[in-house]
Amino acid sequence: MRRLKMIVSYDGTAYSGFQTQPHGNTIQDKLELAVKLLTGDTVKVVSSGRTDAGVHARGQVIHFDTESRIPAERWAIAMNSRLPDDIVVLEAQEVDQSFHARYSAKTKTYAYTINNNKFPDVMRRKQELHHPRPLDWEAMREALRHLEGEHDFTSFCSARSTQASHVRTIYRTRIDHLGDRHPDYQGVYRIFVTGNGFLYNMVRMIVGTLIEVGEGRRSSSEIPEILEARNPMHEKLTAMAHGLTLWEVRYDSGDGTAT
Amino acid sequence: MRRLKMIVSYDGTAYSGFQTQPHGNTIQDKLELAVKLLTGDTVKVVSSGRTDAGVHARGQVIHFDTESRIPAERWAIAMNSRLPDDIVVLEAQEVDQSFHARYSAKTKTYAYTINNNKFPDVMRRKQELHHPRPLDWEAMREALRHLEGEHDFTSFCSARSTQASHVRTIYRTRIDHLGDRHPDYQGVYRIFVTGNGFLYNMVRMIVGTLIEVGEGRRSSSEIPEILEARNPMHEKLTAMAHGLTLWEVRYDSGDGTAT
Repeated sequence: MRRLKMIVSYDGTAYSGFQTQPHGNTIQDKLELAVKLLTGDTVKVVSSGRTDAGVHARGQVIHFDTESRIPAERWAIAMNSRLPDDIVVLEAQEVDQSFHARYSAKTKTYAYTINNNKFPDVMRRKQELHHPRPLDWEAMREALRHLEGEHDFTSFCSARSTQASHVRTIYRTRIDHLGDRHPDYQGVYRIFVTGNGFLYNMVRMIVGTLIEVGEGRRSSSEIPEILEARNPMHEKLTAMAHGLTLWEVRYDSGDGTAT
Repeated sequence: MRRLKMIVSYDGTAYSGFQTQPHGNTIQDKLELAVKLLTGDTVKVVSSGRTDAGVHARGQVIHFDTESRIPAERWAIAMNSRLPDDIVVLEAQEVDQSFHARYSAKTKTYAYTINNNKFPDVMRRKQELHHPRPLDWEAMREALRHLEGEHDFTSFCSARSTQASHVRTIYRTRIDHLGDRHPDYQGVYRIFVTGNGFLYNMVRMIVGTLIEVGEGRRSSSEIPEILEARNPMHEKLTAMAHGLTLWEVRYDSGDGTAT
């Protein structure tokens, strides 16, 4: 039995999220079907973590076990020809049995993209939250910095969470104005958050709160109090799914990855 | 009666092209319907030129006449709230009756985007031609420069064309490697062609020929002979519609545009 690790990107627009569901059209289903079409085997695909309906991935990581002898370097093309065109395998490699897409992950980066222009960009409408009202991006950067470090993120987690611990560490945050480098992205901002793990709806609730700060309805200095309150923010603050992308998952060099 | 000029962008993926067709779901139909929903009037929308099924527009220009007294500056938002989300009016202004979206146009720029990476970009798959085999972009730039100037473009025009004259002028061409400015566009190239008008399938046949040059199956120095032959290239050279975008239409300052 071999274990394969793959990096997968997908446009989540047409799916009910990553994880298999009773009535759902999910990314996991499509990946498992592609493996079955390719090898004849039924496998269980394990991801670094589920993504919700409408959420995209630039670098989701999965693993599964297979008896197939197809060389690792041929898997990406073979999978892609059996996948719908909104799911693309970018890389495949054989890894040690000790590698686990979820448990071996050291950091995850999510990106949330906001188009702050008067009108949406028609080509990117499924990947950008359109927010035509002005936002104070400096205040938002300041608010975001207050979230760096180890905190109990109960305030930024769905009240329905059943996780034992809400303590997570955010290592790095950044807000880029994409228009600084590329004229087609004038007025488009991308919020990056890198951490050791994220609670249910955590990034979307953080972004919803940043938008309140950007609109001047909250001060960035309120963030430490909000964290300390350990009281889930109102659900309506959850920013829409389509602006969110699982950007990158990192594993350290000692994770059993055979290169 | 007032004449309104609008700049419209659209994702052509879901449409049978710009122009109204007997059984077609077209951009023109959607625009005329939005005007009807807004004003109650049936108008005829005139564009700078039709775009084919699957072709996009960043800056299509239209005009139509209306009795409505809605101020010009309120039209864009009013139209957008009545249009599907893959069509966006970016700008509206009142113009003189002498302005005509098609006949007053001085230059048009088309852009064709090619993703030359091993795998397609999942988010941009409907706007980029994926061409994984290596291309010689310098040879393609050279070939494209041979097309600048006034020429009879019969060789780069569908054999089905019924136009009286195939003489057109290409003022400027350019191929940008978008990855030079934006890391997310590594390996993605955009071909710009600006001219005083384009024949049916002209840009797509030019791009198909450039790809042959880029693959080394033709030399860039053959372009002058191809032009002189005035013999339509094979239809299969027509590059796929989805990589093409009507980028910009320009009118000169004496075109009756009231600003």
